[in-house]
Amino acid sequence: MEGVDHLADERNKAQFDVDDMKIVWAGSRHAYELSDRISRLVASDPEFKKDHVTSLGRKELFKNTLRKAAHGWKRINELGLNEEEALKLRTFMDQPSFTDLHWGMFVPAIKGQGTDEQQQQWLPLANKMQIIGCYAQTELGHGSNVQGLETTATFDVKTDEFVLNSPTLTSSKWWPGGLGKISTHAVVYARLIINDKDYGVHGFIAQLRSLDDHLPLPGITIGDIGMKFGSAAYNSMDNGLLRFDHVRIPRNQMLMRVSQVTREGKYVHSSVPRQLVYGTMVYVRQIIVFDASVALSRAVCIATRYSAVRRQFGSQNGSPETQVIDYKTQQARLFPLLASAYAFRFAGEWLKWLYTDVMERLQAKDFSTLPEAHACTAGLKSLTTSVAADGIEECRKLCGGHGYLCSSGLPELFAVYIPACTYEGDNVVLLLQVARYLMKAISQLNSGNKPVGTTAYLGRAEQLMQYHSDVLRAEDWLKPNVVVEAFEARAARMSMACAQNLSKFNNPEDGFQELSADLIEAATAHCQLIVVSKFIEKLQQDIPGKGVKQQLQVLCSIYALFLLHKHIGDFLSTDCITPKQGSLANEQLRSLYSQIRPNAIALVDAFNHTDHYLGSILGRYDGNVYPKLYEAAWKDPLNDTVIPDGFHQYVQPLLKQQLRNARL
Amino acid sequence: MEGVDHLADERNKAQFDVDDMKIVWAGSRHAYELSDRISRLVASDPEFKKDHVTSLGRKELFKNTLRKAAHGWKRINELGLNEEEALKLRTFMDQPSFTDLHWGMFVPAIKGQGTDEQQQQWLPLANKMQIIGCYAQTELGHGSNVQGLETTATFDVKTDEFVLNSPTLTSSKWWPGGLGKISTHAVVYARLIINDKDYGVHGFIAQLRSLDDHLPLPGITIGDIGMKFGSAAYNSMDNGLLRFDHVRIPRNQMLMRVSQVTREGKYVHSSVPRQLVYGTMVYVRQIIVFDASVALSRAVCIATRYSAVRRQFGSQNGSPETQVIDYKTQQARLFPLLASAYAFRFAGEWLKWLYTDVMERLQAKDFSTLPEAHACTAGLKSLTTSVAADGIEECRKLCGGHGYLCSSGLPELFAVYIPACTYEGDNVVLLLQVARYLMKAISQLNSGNKPVGTTAYLGRAEQLMQYHSDVLRAEDWLKPNVVVEAFEARAARMSMACAQNLSKFNNPEDGFQELSADLIEAATAHCQLIVVSKFIEKLQQDIPGKGVKQQLQVLCSIYALFLLHKHIGDFLSTDCITPKQGSLANEQLRSLYSQIRPNAIALVDAFNHTDHYLGSILGRYDGNVYPKLYEAAWKDPLNDTVIPDGFHQYVQPLLKQQLRNARL
Ligand SMILES: Cc1cc2nc3c(=O)[nH]c(=O)nc-3n(C[C@H](O)[C@H](O)[C@H](O)COP(=O)(O)OP(=O)(O)OC[C@H]3O[C@@H](n4cnc5c(N)ncnc54)[C@H](O)[C@@H]3O)c2cc1C
Ligand SMILES: Cc1cc2nc3c(=O)[nH]c(=O)nc-3n(C[C@H](O)[C@H](O)[C@H](O)COP(=O)(O)OP(=O)(O)OC[C@H]3O[C@@H](n4cnc5c(N)ncnc54)[C@H](O)[C@@H]3O)c2cc1C
Repeated sequence: MEGVDHLADERNKAQFDVDDMKIVWAGSRHAYELSDRISRLVASDPEFKKDHVTSLGRKELFKNTLRKAAHGWKRINELGLNEEEALKLRTFMDQPSFTDLHWGMFVPAIKGQGTDEQQQQWLPLANKMQIIGCYAQTELGHGSNVQGLETTATFDVKTDEFVLNSPTLTSSKWWPGGLGKISTHAVVYARLIINDKDYGVHGFIAQLRSLDDHLPLPGITIGDIGMKFGSAAYNSMDNGLLRFDHVRIPRNQMLMRVSQVTREGKYVHSSVPRQLVYGTMVYVRQIIVFDASVALSRAVCIATRYSAVRRQFGSQNGSPETQVIDYKTQQARLFPLLASAYAFRFAGEWLKWLYTDVMERLQAKDFSTLPEAHACTAGLKSLTTSVAADGIEECRKLCGGHGYLCSSGLPELFAVYIPACTYEGDNVVLLLQVARYLMKAISQLNSGNKPVGTTAYLGRAEQLMQYHSDVLRAEDWLKPNVVVEAFEARAARMSMACAQNLSKFNNPEDGFQELSADLIEAATAHCQLIVVSKFIEKLQQDIPGKGVKQQLQVLCSIYALFLLHKHIGDFLSTDCITPKQGSLANEQLRSLYSQIRPNAIALVDAFNHTDHYLGSILGRYDGNVYPKLYEAAWKDPLNDTVIPDGFHQYVQPLLKQQLRNARL
Repeated sequence: MEGVDHLADERNKAQFDVDDMKIVWAGSRHAYELSDRISRLVASDPEFKKDHVTSLGRKELFKNTLRKAAHGWKRINELGLNEEEALKLRTFMDQPSFTDLHWGMFVPAIKGQGTDEQQQQWLPLANKMQIIGCYAQTELGHGSNVQGLETTATFDVKTDEFVLNSPTLTSSKWWPGGLGKISTHAVVYARLIINDKDYGVHGFIAQLRSLDDHLPLPGITIGDIGMKFGSAAYNSMDNGLLRFDHVRIPRNQMLMRVSQVTREGKYVHSSVPRQLVYGTMVYVRQIIVFDASVALSRAVCIATRYSAVRRQFGSQNGSPETQVIDYKTQQARLFPLLASAYAFRFAGEWLKWLYTDVMERLQAKDFSTLPEAHACTAGLKSLTTSVAADGIEECRKLCGGHGYLCSSGLPELFAVYIPACTYEGDNVVLLLQVARYLMKAISQLNSGNKPVGTTAYLGRAEQLMQYHSDVLRAEDWLKPNVVVEAFEARAARMSMACAQNLSKFNNPEDGFQELSADLIEAATAHCQLIVVSKFIEKLQQDIPGKGVKQQLQVLCSIYALFLLHKHIGDFLSTDCITPKQGSLANEQLRSLYSQIRPNAIALVDAFNHTDHYLGSILGRYDGNVYPKLYEAAWKDPLNDTVIPDGFHQYVQPLLKQQLRNARL
C-alpha cells in the first residue's frame, strides 16, 4: 500500500487552494520557498533521522546530538547557506543543541550590547564557530528577578580587570543551554562592583574552557544540571551550572555599548539609549510568538490528520465506523486550536512589523511607543505560549491512547515546547507587567496622556462603558466590528473595574498584590483582544487565492467566538452581552465547525510540515497510520531480543519460586 | 546544614493538629499506619532507589524495573505481607511494572469473570506468580469501542477448543501492560464465534509464552510497542502488541461466570447477573478517583513546599525577598489544587461506600441504583483525572524553571499519570455517557420515575428553575446550603436547557451529536456538584482533632468558590446568581486564600508522603532545596567525564575548522 494517500478523499473535499494558503501561512512566497526547500533538504538527509532518539540513554543522546550539530554545520558550509537558510536548517533538524544558544543568544547579545570594537573582536570568531558561546544569566537562586542575581564582577583598577566570582551557592549559574559540556565562552550577567559600589547587573564575555584541551579554565567549575522533562526533548541540550572562583577577565570584556567602565574605574553611560534593551526584547518575543504558532500547528496537524484516519463507534450494518473528527466534541476541542495556530501566526507577523517600527523610532530617539510595545509583546508572549503548551497536550489527548506513544510525536513536542512558558519571562510575571501597564494607562486617562497602539481603545473607555451588544441573530456574530467591540468593551471594563478596586487601597502596591489574580484576568482579556483584532486586520488586506480568504474568515470567527464562549463569564459579568447573545454565539460556533470540517485536512496541509519535521506516525501525510505504527514498534531496543535482559536473572527465579535463593 | 528543617517556621504557623489531619487524609488510623509503615519500609531500602532512572536508556530502565519487581516480591514473601500491605509496597515502589497488571487486572478479571472451577484452577498459580498475566483488550484499531474488537475466538466443536485469531492488522492487541516482554498468560478479549454466529466480545485465558524457555508459543507474535511519554515514567512497563495465528485453547479457558459455551457449542447464560460487570467498573473507577487525589497531592505537596522556599523579588533594604507562596497569583493557582486534592479524597471515600452499597444490592438482585452508580463513577473518573493531570502540570509551572528538571519530580509524575485520562474510558467518552444518563433521567421526570442518588436533585427541577441566590454579603458564600443550592440550580438548568434543545430535533441521536459539546458542559456541572456535595457531607460528620475541621471547611469553601469563579459564565447565563454575587464569591475566595496560607505547609505534610515517594528535591520535607539540587546535578551520566563522549569526534573539528575533512 506504500504510496497510497489514505487522506486523498479528505483533500478532495477542500474548498480552497491549498498552495495559495501555504504562502499566506509562510508569510510570503520567499518565506514559503525557503522553508520548503530547507525542510526537504533536512528530511532527505539520513544523518538527520530522529525517530529512535527517544529510547537513547542520556550520553548516547548527547553524542547523537553533537554528531547532528556538526553535520548540520558541515552542510551549511558545503552548501554555502546564508544566515536565514542556516537558521531554517537548524530549526528543521528539530533537536535542541548548543548551537541554538550560540546563534540565538550569544551572538545576538554581543551584537546588541557590544561596542563596535567588541563586535569586531568577537563576531568573526563566533560566526565561524571558532568559539562557541552561551548565555549565562539565570542562577540557582534567581531567574525572574534578574536584578537579584548574585554573581559579582569586581573591577580591579590595579590590573585593569574584572574579577568574576560566585559568592554563594545560590549564585551558581544554572540553566544556560550549551554551558554544561560544550561552550568555550559565555555572556555572563553579574553585578558590577567598583570601589565597593554596586552598579547592578551587566553583561560580560568570559572564556570558560581552554581552546586547546576543552578543560574548564582555572577557577571555573562547570557541569550539566541533569535530566529534564521528556525522553529526548531538551535532554539533547547541556543546560549547565557554572561557578567562578575569582576568575579574572580583561576590562574590555564587559559589554559596553550602553554603559562603560573606564581605565580609572569610572562608570559612564554612552550616548546609545538604554531603551535599546527593550528593542531586543520585542525582537526575541516576536520570535517566540511565531514559534508558538509553529509548535501549535505541528500538534494540530497531527491531531487533525489522525482524527480523520481514526474511526471509532457508529458503524451501522457493517458500514465503516465514524471518523472521530466528525464528533462534535472532537471538533469543539480541535478546531479552536487550528484557528489559534492561524491567529498566532498573524499576531507574530504583526509583531514583526511592530519591531521594525519600534527600531525606526528608536533611531529617531522617539521612545513614546516603547512601553506599549513592551507590554504588548510581553502579553502576547505569555498568551500564545500558554495556549500552545496546553494545546499540544490537548492534541495528544485527542489522539486517544496512541497519542501517548512517542511515535505519535506529541509527547516530545510537549516536553520540548513547555519551557517557552517559563523562559524569557515567566508567563504569570509577564501578565502582571501587562496589568501594571494597563493600570498606568487608565490612571493617566484624565491627564490627557492618550493611550497608544494596542491600548488605544482605552481612550474610548467612557463610550465602551456604555456599550451593549446589539446582536440579534447568530449570524450577527460573524461581523468583525460586532466582535471587536464586544472584546474591547469586555477588556476595558475588566481593566476599569480593577482600577476602581485598586483605588480603594491606601497603598497602591498592596492593592496590586491583593488584586493580582483579577489583574491577570484583565490582562488576558486585553491580550486576547489584540490577537482577535490583528486577525481581523489581516483579513482586511488583499489575500489572493481561491477560497483562501473565506477559510481564514471562518477561522477568525471560530477563534473569536470560541474565546467568547470560553470566557462567557467575563462578557456577562461586565454586562457586555446578554445570556441570549452568548448562546447565539455558541450556535454560530457550531455551524462554523461544520463549515471548517471539510477543509480541515487541507488547512493543516497548508502548514507544509514534512513528515520528518512532524516526527509523527499519527500525523503522516499519507494517513497510513496502522502499518507504520506496527512497523515502528519493532524498532524499540526492547525488541532487539525475544527474551529481555534481566529476565533470567530476575523474573525466571520468581516464576520458578526460587527467588529466596536468588542473588538480586 | 544536614538535619536542619528549613520549613520549621512554616510548620509552626499551622493552626491545626497535623497528626490528626493525617488520619483524616488516610481515611482511618489503620490506613494511616499501614501507609506510614510500608512507605518507610520502601524508602529505607536502597534497592528501591529511583533517583537515577530518568537518565537510563530503555533496556537499562527495563532491567532496573525487573530487578525492583523481583526484589519487591521477595520482600513481600520474606516479610509475609498480606494483600493490602503488598499492594502498598508496590505503590510506594513507584515504578510501573508488569506486576501492576498482573495484580490489578489479570487476577481481578479471573476473580470477577471466572467460574469457581476456573478460579480454583488459575488463582493459586497467579497468587504465587508461577504464571504472570496481563489484560489484553485494546487493539490497534479499537480502544474506546470495545464492541468493535476484531480478534476472534472461534469454537471448534470437533476438538472442544477455541481458535484465537487476529484476522487483520488492526486486530493486533496493542497497549496491554506487561504483555510485551514478561507475561506468560493473558486474559484476551475476542469475539466469540460459534457456527459462524458472532456472540460479541468475551474474555479468554490464553497462555502466551512457554513456562520453560519463555519463548512465545507457536502461532503467537509478541513485542513491545515502543517508547511512551516521559524519561522513565511508563517506559518501565512493557506495553505490548500481540497477534494470534489460529492459536488453540481448551474450551474451559473462556471466562464463563456469566455466559458459557457447552461441549456441544451451545451459548448459554448462567444465573449470575450480567450487571456484575458494572460492579467491577464501579470498583476500578473508585480506585482511579482515589489515585487522582494521591497524584494531585504529590504535585501540590512539591509545589507548596517549594513555593515557601523560593523567594523572588520584593527585597526591601536588604531584607529577604518575598516567598513566592505569598504572591496572590501563586495562591490563586496553588490553593484550589490543594483543595481539590482533599475534595477528591473524600469523593473517593464516598465512592468506596457506593461500591459496597451497589454490591449488596446486586446480591439482593436490586439493580435499581446501578445505572446511576455507573454514570456517577464514570463522571467522577473523568472529572478527577482531568483535573489531576492538568493540576500536576500547573504545579510544575508554579515551580518556575526548576520545575522542568526531572529532579523536581514533576515531569515524571505528569508523564506517568496522564494515561489515567485515557484508559478505563476516555474522559470525553465517559462524560458523554453521563450526559446520556442525565438526559434520560430528565425525560423520565414526568413518568413518575424519580431520579435517585446523585441525580435526586433533578427531582426538584421545577423548584430549582425558580431559584435565585439570596447571597448579600461575601460571608454568605461560606454557608454550605447556599453553595449546594447554587451548584444544584446551575447543573439542573444546564441539563434542562440541553434537554429542551434536544427536543427540537426530529432524530434524538442527531440532536445528541449536534449538541454534544454543550452536553459535556452540563455533565461537568453535574459532576462538580457531586464533589462539592460529598465534601460538604463529609464535614457534617464528626471530625476529631484540634482545628482539623476548620481547615477542611476552608478548603471546602475554596474548592466550591474556585469552581464558581472559574465557571461563572454557567452561573450567570443560567441566571442562578448575579454578577454582584459572583464578585462577592471572588472576594470571599481571596480572603480564604489568606486564611489557608499559614496552614499550607502543614496541610501538605498531612499527606504524609516520604521523600522517596515524592521523588522531588523541590518538595523535600526539610526544604533544603538548593544544596541538594546542586548535589544531584553531578550524578547525571553526562558529568561522568569532563569532556563528553563525542566531543573529540564532532565538536573539536568544528572549533578547529577541520570539519570539512572530518568523518562524521
Ligand atoms: C529549558 C530551559 C532553558 C533555559 N535556558 C536558559 C539560558 O540559556 N540562559 C539563562 O540564563 N537562563 C535559562 N533558563 C532559565 C529561565 O530563564 C528561568 O527559569 C526563567 O526566567 C524563570 O525564572 P525562575 O526559574 O526563577 O522562576 P521563579 O521566578 O522562581 O518562578 C516560580 C514561581 O513564582 C512565581 N513568581 C515569581 N515572581 C513573581 C511575582 N513577582 N509575582 C507573582 N508570582 C511570581 C512564578 O509565576 C512561578 O509560579 C532556562 C530555563 C529552562 C526551563
Ligand atoms: C499507558 C496506557 C496503558 C494501557 N494499558 C492497557 C492495558 O493494560 N490493557 C488494555 O487492554 N488496554 C490498555 N490501554 C489502552 C486504553 O484502554 C485505550 O487507549 C483507551 O481505552 C482509549 O481508547 P482509544 O485509544 O481507542 O481512544 P479513541 O477512542 O481512539 O480516542 C480518540 C479520540 O476520539 C474521541 N472519541 C472516541 N469515541 C468518541 C465518541 N463516541 N464520541 C466523541 N468522541 C469520541 C476521543 O475522545 C478521543 O479524543 C492502555 C493505554 C495507555 C495509554
